[in-house]
Amino acid sequence: MEEKLVQEIPRKSENLSQWYIEVIRRAELADYAPMKGMMVIRPAGYAIWENIQRLLDKRFKETGHTNAYFPLFIPESFLKKEAEHVEGFAPEVAWVTHGGDEELQERLAVRPTSESIICAMYSKWVHSWRDLPILINQWANVVRWEKVTRPFLRTTEFLWQEGHTVHATYEDAQEEVMRILYIYKEFIETELAIKIYAGRKSDKEKFAGALATYTVEALMPDGKALQAGTSHNLGQNFAKAFDIRFEDKDQKLKYAWQTSWGVSTRLVGATIMVHGDDDGLVIPPRVAPYQIVIVPIFKMKDKETVLPVAEKIKERLKENYRVVYDPREEYTPGWKFAEWEMRGVPLRIEIGPRDIKENSVVIVRRDTREKIKVSMDELEEKTAYFLDEIQKELFRRSEKFTEENTRKTEDYEEFKHIIEEKRGFVIAPWCGSQECEMKVKEDTKATIRLIPLEEGDVEGKKCMVCGKPARHLVYFARSY
Amino acid sequence: MEEKLVQEIPRKSENLSQWYIEVIRRAELADYAPMKGMMVIRPAGYAIWENIQRLLDKRFKETGHTNAYFPLFIPESFLKKEAEHVEGFAPEVAWVTHGGDEELQERLAVRPTSESIICAMYSKWVHSWRDLPILINQWANVVRWEKVTRPFLRTTEFLWQEGHTVHATYEDAQEEVMRILYIYKEFIETELAIKIYAGRKSDKEKFAGALATYTVEALMPDGKALQAGTSHNLGQNFAKAFDIRFEDKDQKLKYAWQTSWGVSTRLVGATIMVHGDDDGLVIPPRVAPYQIVIVPIFKMKDKETVLPVAEKIKERLKENYRVVYDPREEYTPGWKFAEWEMRGVPLRIEIGPRDIKENSVVIVRRDTREKIKVSMDELEEKTAYFLDEIQKELFRRSEKFTEENTRKTEDYEEFKHIIEEKRGFVIAPWCGSQECEMKVKEDTKATIRLIPLEEGDVEGKKCMVCGKPARHLVYFARSY
Repeated sequence: MEEKLVQEIPRKSENLSQWYIEVIRRAELADYAPMKGMMVIRPAGYAIWENIQRLLDKRFKETGHTNAYFPLFIPESFLKKEAEHVEGFAPEVAWVTHGGDEELQERLAVRPTSESIICAMYSKWVHSWRDLPILINQWANVVRWEKVTRPFLRTTEFLWQEGHTVHATYEDAQEEVMRILYIYKEFIETELAIKIYAGRKSDKEKFAGALATYTVEALMPDGKALQAGTSHNLGQNFAKAFDIRFEDKDQKLKYAWQTSWGVSTRLVGATIMVHGDDDGLVIPPRVAPYQIVIVPIFKMKDKETVLPVAEKIKERLKENYRVVYDPREEYTPGWKFAEWEMRGVPLRIEIGPRDIKENSVVIVRRDTREKIKVSMDELEEKTAYFLDEIQKELFRRSEKFTEENTRKTEDYEEFKHIIEEKRGFVIAPWCGSQECEMKVKEDTKATIRLIPLEEGDVEGKKCMVCGKPARHLVYFARSY
Repeated sequence: MEEKLVQEIPRKSENLSQWYIEVIRRAELADYAPMKGMMVIRPAGYAIWENIQRLLDKRFKETGHTNAYFPLFIPESFLKKEAEHVEGFAPEVAWVTHGGDEELQERLAVRPTSESIICAMYSKWVHSWRDLPILINQWANVVRWEKVTRPFLRTTEFLWQEGHTVHATYEDAQEEVMRILYIYKEFIETELAIKIYAGRKSDKEKFAGALATYTVEALMPDGKALQAGTSHNLGQNFAKAFDIRFEDKDQKLKYAWQTSWGVSTRLVGATIMVHGDDDGLVIPPRVAPYQIVIVPIFKMKDKETVLPVAEKIKERLKENYRVVYDPREEYTPGWKFAEWEMRGVPLRIEIGPRDIKENSVVIVRRDTREKIKVSMDELEEKTAYFLDEIQKELFRRSEKFTEENTRKTEDYEEFKHIIEEKRGFVIAPWCGSQECEMKVKEDTKATIRLIPLEEGDVEGKKCMVCGKPARHLVYFARSY
């Protein structure tokens, strides 16, 4: 019966949505809370998020950022100060109206994002050019009242980091925006092994209140794009709304320039979706809750021989790796193999009586299923090697899939055909008008995911929709 | 003028409350948010919390706990399931009544603590003795609508960790409760250098819904006690309210036994209050945002000589320590000394032209103001030594102060006199009745902080209030 349970996951290739939901449940990454759209992140899922936090926080600190914590609640009047901002977020806000038995004089928004409360504080803290730059990040929960939800990818409450910086000049702010964009790209590619395209959003798709939004986009196995992180140049919009001014070196009073940027627990969802297979999760070693599972293989007569050796292996490896050791006697080795494969542990080490005689172990890769006999003397060396190889192989696959599913066309009929039949990213010429952008969305559900940072040559090219001269070659896709 | 700013802090010995507020503002640990009772934790304050998180989380993981994340919102009906629990918390709940434009069918509590939502999930997850124990912790924000607030010590929103565990037997649960209590005591004494008394709360003071609450209590410089953390044995109260049952090894269906336990950003407040002095903060090295400040001392002609040496010192030390380097030319060395002293950096390293000639530096301890000439060859060794000495010295002071202010009496008049004139802890015999407990509170504002784990001999002793035979020797104090 237990063998059967392992096989119960729908095939990823046949029904990605069902597979995704089922693998999250079976691998105990998350569970539905009894409130609409809310999720519990269980230990196996939270451990991935903790690894993401640790690895990303290190990068933020290395580039001069510090963490702080701002209030969960934002008075409605603050949210309303920046006109576009409130328009963008008000429909998804959860409102607190009572504290204890008292009705509040002004209702409080549960933060959907923190620009407005943070800017209110920055206006108190910023006086002089000496106070700049302010480079603050916050790890926090936010709430957006979503209609359609999916674990990790879109939930009413989610966890994220939000950076909020203040600068003396536009150039300094723009430099920060790009620094963070490249950190996101490098982080996701290196640690999550997911190929990233980075670029700028169209005006229609940018953050409510920003001058410009930059984005990192990844391709999911069903050919839909996923926005994995954004970095906004807020210009002086919030500085003007919240009166953030400083005396510059020339003794003139100037409005400050700001940025904000974030990634969320959505990255856990992307990691699950990109790398998993029909047998369950495949988690990149750098963020895997457990990187290695050790399964001793023994009949009762061999127990005293095998377990002490298996435990010694555990002791040797746990200094440098996250190791789980599974000597349970109520399950067969075969069941354990399937169980830990389903949970996505990158490397399995099997050790039985014959291995012990030969002073070796068997290492099994989760990504390729390759079984490798490794001498006990080379245990640490080979473990490091294969974990590194798995990380690289997962990225190679993601990169290959993404590149193979990034197509070019200048013909709108072909574009529609690709989006409908093959999906993926389609690079196409666009005149820059919102009309054409909207028409593509209505016709195909595809949106402009990004305008590339290094723009291609549009000389002589025409917008695939209206035929007017093209201003950009942009990446379209359907998206999550 | 800047020299004057440094001196502006009220004397700690003369007005602790004013000193506390002012040092938090001046050292930029926190700021008031524009909403009643809400606080912003600024980078210097948050860095202390991050160190607390890291050092405590390590201890939780070493004892088999994992982290998870449960929803911020709890339906009102869930909160009501455990009768005592809702009675205790309902008056301080912030209520969400609207999501976007819609009024909710059932209002949602912003979690004041998470027992009720977590137990709802545990009732789904627990089926068999094989599922036990569940040892989950959560790092999260919680909201309690407080009337009187004070930065870090009592705020409407605060950050904390809350552990929630499930066990098969009372004994297992009680063992967990005590394991955590000792972790808290050891952690606070080792890392925060604050002397702790650990014990059990009286029934009147226990957690709403618990069988028994255990507590770690510290003494503040004004002689008031501060509850620094609690560990609750929830018994089967929540298991019965939320139907958490498991099939035991004997195949009988049984209600599970539970614990919950937490410490909060209040610990940052305790650390500030206990160790600071008239010149500002004194932060224990283990949790200090910066452990060492390097101040190069130079006139313009020596700049090229001094700065490269100072930078080399920074490079040598920053591998193992959190170091700040302050070569700013717009401030005098004297101003910097005062500024970094106010910010509580445990160790200052001064390096000037004469030190360079002598191949040495001057190390200054924040706790004793001692200046020590150290050979450059012994830099790492001496730095480690003095940081360790400072940590120990701070604990010695806290321990001495706490012990000197822990008095015994069996006479109620003397008790009242001590509480009024000397404050501190007073150990006194108590009959165990709530009447006497209440009378002490009414007469003196002192409450029972704890019943010691190793109970003293009460043979022949009488309750200091009613004169009936004493059941316990308990620790009374006024408290925060």
